[in-house]
Amino acid sequence: MIPLTHFSLAQIQAMESRYRAAMINSLSGFKGVVLIGTQDPQGQTNLAIFSSLFHLGSSPALFGHIIRPDTVYRHTLDNIMHTGVYTINHLNASIYKQAHQTSARYEHSVSEFTATGLETEYSQGIVAPYVRESSLKFGMKFEERIDLKINGTILIIGSVVETFIPSDSIAGDGYVDIEKAGTVTVSGLDSYHFTERLARLTYAKPDSFTRELGQPAEL
Amino acid sequence: MIPLTHFSLAQIQAMESRYRAAMINSLSGFKGVVLIGTQDPQGQTNLAIFSSLFHLGSSPALFGHIIRPDTVYRHTLDNIMHTGVYTINHLNASIYKQAHQTSARYEHSVSEFTATGLETEYSQGIVAPYVRESSLKFGMKFEERIDLKINGTILIIGSVVETFIPSDSIAGDGYVDIEKAGTVTVSGLDSYHFTERLARLTYAKPDSFTRELGQPAEL
Repeated sequence: MIPLTHFSLAQIQAMESRYRAAMINSLSGFKGVVLIGTQDPQGQTNLAIFSSLFHLGSSPALFGHIIRPDTVYRHTLDNIMHTGVYTINHLNASIYKQAHQTSARYEHSVSEFTATGLETEYSQGIVAPYVRESSLKFGMKFEERIDLKINGTILIIGSVVETFIPSDSIAGDGYVDIEKAGTVTVSGLDSYHFTERLARLTYAKPDSFTRELGQPAEL
Repeated sequence: MIPLTHFSLAQIQAMESRYRAAMINSLSGFKGVVLIGTQDPQGQTNLAIFSSLFHLGSSPALFGHIIRPDTVYRHTLDNIMHTGVYTINHLNASIYKQAHQTSARYEHSVSEFTATGLETEYSQGIVAPYVRESSLKFGMKFEERIDLKINGTILIIGSVVETFIPSDSIAGDGYVDIEKAGTVTVSGLDSYHFTERLARLTYAKPDSFTRELGQPAEL
């Protein structure tokens, strides 16, 4: 066993703020990392990287994400509140550096699409820009905003209105093989990773032990 | 480019429910997957797998996760509300099957530790069980509960009170190399993956393009 280092609350609080941010951001494990595409009522596009997307429900299909309003992500918040729609775009190995670059503090008048060289793409479904180079993406309708008093962050909840999924990545049971689709993941604030599957596991029941999907049950 | 399949909202709503759940759960990308350890006031332990953990802030260090109260995860909710504390434990390749098995609908009187063979471990910091076999884990204090009216799920927000991190995985800037620590990730409801790093990237600024950490800037 690798020895573990214990940090107390007092030690965590005493850390230099960037050091603490890097460490604390690493604790939630690997994260879904996506580009959220929006535009303002005048059609000025914005693209921002988020790693706080989480599943809230499948029927209706709902996802949440967190916005810190005192940052450049304010533009995404404003656009969602004004237009009521946004797109969510997976990253792949071809675009993760451009995706990371969208976190720079560009002025509102600068589109991160233009600044990073990613291309916009529109569906007939919603008036928000998709990322053409993203191979798995979906459109969202704003549903609810919850201001979290505990630290001033904002939870945005939206519902899925349409999806674009690689045709060869959809399994027979609905699972989308996002590894096959080339989706990458992030850890901490800045480390990007691709993945290798260990296994899919069967639905867990109290009276038998889960096994790898496709393997026969023990007799 | 791989052709993309478009699903409209009407098509998504018409999907068989388990098929839709598998697909929608795949859309948020790779997810942090953790075991949350709790116990009731009588000391009966509980262990449950969650893939909705998200970072809310670093100062104070806050994380949120979602609980569906109409499921077996109700036990975790009840224990957190009664004791005010819980542990969060990363999965690695040695324990992901046992971790998945904790999602089975065990009765409250059955500890998932006992049922899956994972071992409890206690720190002096909090009265909630850690997973001994987990190589990265931290203790949490309950801060806030938000009932989400949109679909009846519950957001639990907690603050970090202590951490246990592999000593050889802490980088000089505070980043924790969770890949080196053996942490695994999940996609959809049941697919587990390990990772391989593409790169860490430098902090993005508007006037220069991000590059891989450790590589010199272009002259």
